[in-house]
Amino acid sequence: MQDEPEVAVLRYGHRPGRDDRMTTHVGLTARALGADRVIFPDNAGQSEETVEDITGRFGGPFDVELTGALNATIRDWDGVVVHLTMYGERVQDVEADIREAHQTEPLLVVVGGEKVPFEVYEGADWNVGVTNQPHSEVAGLAVFLDRLFDGRELEREWEDADRNVIPMATGKKVVDPDAE
Amino acid sequence: MQDEPEVAVLRYGHRPGRDDRMTTHVGLTARALGADRVIFPDNAGQSEETVEDITGRFGGPFDVELTGALNATIRDWDGVVVHLTMYGERVQDVEADIREAHQTEPLLVVVGGEKVPFEVYEGADWNVGVTNQPHSEVAGLAVFLDRLFDGRELEREWEDADRNVIPMATGKKVVDPDAE
Repeated sequence: MQDEPEVAVLRYGHRPGRDDRMTTHVGLTARALGADRVIFPDNAGQSEETVEDITGRFGGPFDVELTGALNATIRDWDGVVVHLTMYGERVQDVEADIREAHQTEPLLVVVGGEKVPFEVYEGADWNVGVTNQPHSEVAGLAVFLDRLFDGRELEREWEDADRNVIPMATGKKVVDPDAE
Repeated sequence: MQDEPEVAVLRYGHRPGRDDRMTTHVGLTARALGADRVIFPDNAGQSEETVEDITGRFGGPFDVELTGALNATIRDWDGVVVHLTMYGERVQDVEADIREAHQTEPLLVVVGGEKVPFEVYEGADWNVGVTNQPHSEVAGLAVFLDRLFDGRELEREWEDADRNVIPMATGKKVVDPDAE
């Protein structure tokens, strides 16, 4: 988020067709919950388009990139690397240390697909489990970001949106921000 | 969770094939993050099987049900109904009231699929947005449950598991609980 070291989310692995929706949801969750950027594998062009389209309509800043070099992105990251995995340390035990590290350093959050090689576990500064139960990489990312930012991400404002949703007790209200 | 009024998650809407993974992830997220039960539409039998299989291996208690009566499940719910939607009130504004209501009453969390009719908005005690941005119903559910339970769900213990994952800084460790 603005005025903080960058948070980027790396989707590690993607099977076109089968993973399109999950990868798109990783990207949209990263955007909605305070990350600055998502990096997809280079075969996830369809998810890239969807996330760019949402950013164009609902605002940014938020960047989407493709890479052919997943391992190098982790290896060469100039900052802290967190890998979300059900085998990792408990998020409630390590989140304070990660929050502190992110006060001064950019953070890369690696979200696995099906098969994550051992070098990712070794390359991460923290392997973190949002529970040690099998559930959803999207759910794990969401809880992790909400805890990393301590809820601040819910207050973030969006620039260059062509529509804003106005919170309502019942019903739907969408306005054009330029007309407000 | 044990010793608290029930929390059930209702997946509203499912398209077989296209939604299988999302619906399964809704169910697994409900289980991992403290809900007692998930209710799927009756055409989501494949997701039901997957969630039951995970519960059999990683433990419970957690129930999975199918229903042909989504609207009646909401209408007849004996307790509080929360509908997660990007058009709703901000979660940070209403979570304290919902938490208080859940101290004495069972809570039904409705997670939409593609098209949610207006009667769901009207039937809910709260329509709640985990951000007013488009992202993922799985992410919204995860953040909502983590906030509802105030992190207690991460400490829950599992019964009748035939495997336990032991949190590790690096690598994977899975043990048979009966052999511990």
